[in-house]
Amino acid sequence: MSDAFIAVDWGTTNRRAFVIEHGLVTRTERDARGAASLTPGDYPGEVAAIRQRLGDLPMLLAGMVGSTIGWRDVPYVAAPAGLEALATALGRIDDRTAIVPGLAYRDGARADVMRGEEVQLLGAAAAGLVPSEALLCQPGTHCKWAMIADGRITSFVTAMTGELFAMLRGNGLLARQLGGDVGDGDAFRAGVAEGARRDLAASLFGIRASGVLGLRDDRDAASYASGLLIGSDVAARLAEQPGMPIYILADPGLGTLYAAAVTALGGNATIIDSHGAFVAGITRLRELSA
Amino acid sequence: MSDAFIAVDWGTTNRRAFVIEHGLVTRTERDARGAASLTPGDYPGEVAAIRQRLGDLPMLLAGMVGSTIGWRDVPYVAAPAGLEALATALGRIDDRTAIVPGLAYRDGARADVMRGEEVQLLGAAAAGLVPSEALLCQPGTHCKWAMIADGRITSFVTAMTGELFAMLRGNGLLARQLGGDVGDGDAFRAGVAEGARRDLAASLFGIRASGVLGLRDDRDAASYASGLLIGSDVAARLAEQPGMPIYILADPGLGTLYAAAVTALGGNATIIDSHGAFVAGITRLRELSA
Repeated sequence: MSDAFIAVDWGTTNRRAFVIEHGLVTRTERDARGAASLTPGDYPGEVAAIRQRLGDLPMLLAGMVGSTIGWRDVPYVAAPAGLEALATALGRIDDRTAIVPGLAYRDGARADVMRGEEVQLLGAAAAGLVPSEALLCQPGTHCKWAMIADGRITSFVTAMTGELFAMLRGNGLLARQLGGDVGDGDAFRAGVAEGARRDLAASLFGIRASGVLGLRDDRDAASYASGLLIGSDVAARLAEQPGMPIYILADPGLGTLYAAAVTALGGNATIIDSHGAFVAGITRLRELSA
Repeated sequence: MSDAFIAVDWGTTNRRAFVIEHGLVTRTERDARGAASLTPGDYPGEVAAIRQRLGDLPMLLAGMVGSTIGWRDVPYVAAPAGLEALATALGRIDDRTAIVPGLAYRDGARADVMRGEEVQLLGAAAAGLVPSEALLCQPGTHCKWAMIADGRITSFVTAMTGELFAMLRGNGLLARQLGGDVGDGDAFRAGVAEGARRDLAASLFGIRASGVLGLRDDRDAASYASGLLIGSDVAARLAEQPGMPIYILADPGLGTLYAAAVTALGGNATIIDSHGAFVAGITRLRELSA
């Protein structure tokens, strides 16, 4: 009998479905029918339609589908936790359809949550893409940083780095200066160095002042601002986990920027295969829960 | 002969005019005819209209009126500088009308500028409202921090603290949670303590996580976020100038929040009369330039 199943990475805006057989993706589709565009009543029909297109198979759904804005609110599992803990806490819709829970973490007054990223992070460990102890980084709108030890996420923190950049670009004092392309180079590196001072609100105003005083070409301002935000994020993580090797799960563009910032600030960064990590994680979850 | 003159604090959005005689304000008016709503050609008529309303007197104009978006771009004076340096660098329109220059500061790679705030800051020193060496704070959309020594601004830094708060409140992930009133209290103080970690992008996401996990009432989220931003700003300044007494020039609402944050983080804060400081500064400038 086949071990084939359908995995869905069901986010807020987008969703991606994979047919996985013997740990390999045999078919995939992607569309914009994320949780934000659906009501709970839409999901049975959506799932039936996916099965009609991709095959009448067991399904494992991860991401915002398991949140208050998704199909069913599946309670968070408290970190430290590994794939085994997630498998025992699946939100079971029926005997062939289940939702992967997210993770919650508390460290004194600080709290954090994730939904969906845990599959990729723990999958990287399951696939042997990272050493038994490592700091993993998923850059993006909300950048996730997770400490992995012996196959479990022991702690994690989310930084709104990408969202702050988008906000500053869209509105307010700096918007007019930040229209340019972002890339690694002198301006990005100068931003990383300034970001390491971890004085973000002041460093950001410096972009305006440097423009007014003619000290930096506005064409470089977006790269500098990106360096500032990423540098500030990376510096805080290196201070919390000095010497820990960092593994970055990202598309090449953003992954390269984070890796450059880590290296510039004295850390050790490796970009790893984020797609492979997700497939490994969801496949292992399927094995543990079947 | 009278020493009466008209001082105008001419900002981007608003302007305020004062008739000052023997160091005392005898008449004042405020309107929304800031630099953003005027073209250079409008200013002669605006100035004539002010004289018609308030008296045919010499005029000293400060603020964005002297910028590229104002009447005439008056070059910045480089800090360290005091009122004497400003007086010798006035942008003279005619023998009865002059514009106060702003200040620029460079510290290695970091640059900063101000236009208008310098009158109030140096006025606080001229009026004896602060000791000969002090750190002055003008909270607001762009919070100015200036080191004063012997009547001169020796260095300064601007933090976009208020603008970041307004942005987060208006758009994005946290906007829905940040609609409440801001006040000093347990939530504000918790935010200040978290802000002192100077890990802003991560601490901000914690607001979302605490809401999702039910750890903090969303009615307290705006005060917490304000504490986070102000605490992060204050902590950076205390690290740069440990032990320096801080004098806050602000309306009571924002002044009280900044003073609470300074005290909570181990500093020493005093709120002083910002209106009196402006009047003292512009009066001394008039004496030096007459």
